[in-house]
Amino acid sequence: MRKPNKRVAVLSPIAWRTPPRQYGAWETVASNITEGLVARGWDVTLFASGDSVTRAHLHAVVDKGYEEDSTVDPKVAEYLHISEAFEQAGKFDLIHSHCDFMALTYSQLVRTPVLTTIHGFSSPQILPIYHKYRDGYFVSVSDSDRATGLNYLATVYNGIDLSLYPFQDRRGEDLVFLGRIHPDKGVHLAIEVARLSGMRLIIAGIVQDEVYFREQIKSHLDDQNILYIGPVDVKGKNELFARARALLHLNTIPERFGLVLVEANAAGVPVIAMDLGSCREVIKDGETGFLVNNVAEAARVLGRISEIDGRACRIRVQQNFSINTMVDGYERVYSTIFDLEGRRRS
Amino acid sequence: MRKPNKRVAVLSPIAWRTPPRQYGAWETVASNITEGLVARGWDVTLFASGDSVTRAHLHAVVDKGYEEDSTVDPKVAEYLHISEAFEQAGKFDLIHSHCDFMALTYSQLVRTPVLTTIHGFSSPQILPIYHKYRDGYFVSVSDSDRATGLNYLATVYNGIDLSLYPFQDRRGEDLVFLGRIHPDKGVHLAIEVARLSGMRLIIAGIVQDEVYFREQIKSHLDDQNILYIGPVDVKGKNELFARARALLHLNTIPERFGLVLVEANAAGVPVIAMDLGSCREVIKDGETGFLVNNVAEAARVLGRISEIDGRACRIRVQQNFSINTMVDGYERVYSTIFDLEGRRRS
Repeated sequence: MRKPNKRVAVLSPIAWRTPPRQYGAWETVASNITEGLVARGWDVTLFASGDSVTRAHLHAVVDKGYEEDSTVDPKVAEYLHISEAFEQAGKFDLIHSHCDFMALTYSQLVRTPVLTTIHGFSSPQILPIYHKYRDGYFVSVSDSDRATGLNYLATVYNGIDLSLYPFQDRRGEDLVFLGRIHPDKGVHLAIEVARLSGMRLIIAGIVQDEVYFREQIKSHLDDQNILYIGPVDVKGKNELFARARALLHLNTIPERFGLVLVEANAAGVPVIAMDLGSCREVIKDGETGFLVNNVAEAARVLGRISEIDGRACRIRVQQNFSINTMVDGYERVYSTIFDLEGRRRS
Repeated sequence: MRKPNKRVAVLSPIAWRTPPRQYGAWETVASNITEGLVARGWDVTLFASGDSVTRAHLHAVVDKGYEEDSTVDPKVAEYLHISEAFEQAGKFDLIHSHCDFMALTYSQLVRTPVLTTIHGFSSPQILPIYHKYRDGYFVSVSDSDRATGLNYLATVYNGIDLSLYPFQDRRGEDLVFLGRIHPDKGVHLAIEVARLSGMRLIIAGIVQDEVYFREQIKSHLDDQNILYIGPVDVKGKNELFARARALLHLNTIPERFGLVLVEANAAGVPVIAMDLGSCREVIKDGETGFLVNNVAEAARVLGRISEIDGRACRIRVQQNFSINTMVDGYERVYSTIFDLEGRRRS
């Protein structure tokens, strides 16, 4: 790789700080890529909220994430933040965007190549923009989460900082749900599994769908068997993992990647996940957890959960979902882009 | 003017069709500028929704306005629409934007000069973007609606197509409110004036603030003295003007321009307007209506409404707020920009 003479701009979202204090998967991954590249000697500028924490050069035009600062208009902040990176494009050999379709609309106005990591398609309504810019450079975060017709250079799995999620040898007794409180994440299904199995369920995460929380979750909370503890930071996650017999992730729509599955596995916690979308790429059935198709199956495999070796879970994360493996992947993608651009210009 | 060899892109909003079927002041003005320029021989490309009606070249990437098509995501449509114009920038000598702060964020990525007509500052939260791009080219739609520090080249008053609002010699008997149903527009104050004066009030316009309509307007509607007839098109407006003794426009925040005041005056209808913002630029007190400071004053001046000569109202519109006067204004601004750009490059 030609690191020393290449300058990379990483364009992180500004919903949250990079890295986020609690929730914020896209910002987490953008941070891990940035810090991983810096550790390998790359010259990286991180475009993120002003309170972000990085060893890269930080360039910020918005002080705080718009989800953390009610005085900020998200639309205004996003336009200001994204355009700023493109106005600085001449200083970089590559802009690596994590800012979805919005950043794509600036990509043809600069000469610097733009790589977009697609962290997920929030709705079919955004596809017209992806299709317009389909000849750009794209990375998917799982093989399953791809739109047809886009110029994907690779799938690069998200990687976590394993030092944040130390291996915990002793397994706990509870079931754990960790994620956005939203029907997509199947919190109600996790509750059903807890009831069927007679195990305690601890639910953690931000409430993204208030109606869902009020109508389908709240009435089940009893401070004893079904608990909701709100959003948690890294420390809180590790405390949850210590109490976890298994992580329940019964998503009702195809998962795009599933960072929390990897975090749980890193700590040695087996994952029971719905076999939808990326879950079968992240979880190895019978080795790092179980893939299931419904609540009954999820309850059934709980009886076999002791078959899962926590160390095998961690090793699989080290080998596939670490910052190192992710940065390896992106270095290959960057190299491909620099080669293609070099040829295009010569 | 050097019309023949200059190509202008007019970037209209895509909330509604250009021109709009009913409500849509920004699209109305963008349309009037476009058609006025075309009538004078300019080569104009209108960037607007695909169903727009124009004698200019129409360039559209979104079929219908996002307010008229529930399948469209407004954010996606706006990014797609605005960036398209900037990607085509090389074809134009000037981009004349009516797309607020969003379009500004693309302006430094192209060589083509960008003129922004500021149709109003929707909130102080958008000012950081205006301040960042303060050295661009700006036009205000009234002297009163200006932010400090921006490079304003002129105030160009909005102009209407007078042929759409023919003069009506006979005055009606009712009070008329025409505009968005929103507290900013003082519909509740118009109702108070109707009560005080014992006159009938006809309210027309889109309900923009549902809570306001439900809590402060609806209970007053009685199908007899206070009527709400929904949004109206040009034909509906003229029917209202035929019934109007006066138009009530008791805005509670500074008006930015007030297109409906001009439309009413064009038809010969006097306007009673709150003396806030642009109203004193649009209405000449005692000649084309009355400027008031409260409901009591509004009710009082109704007793003097016959002093207002409908023909004087129309003449003032012809002389100050017609498509012709507006296009005169913009031609002067364009000329200034071409001179400045020419000097910058030489």
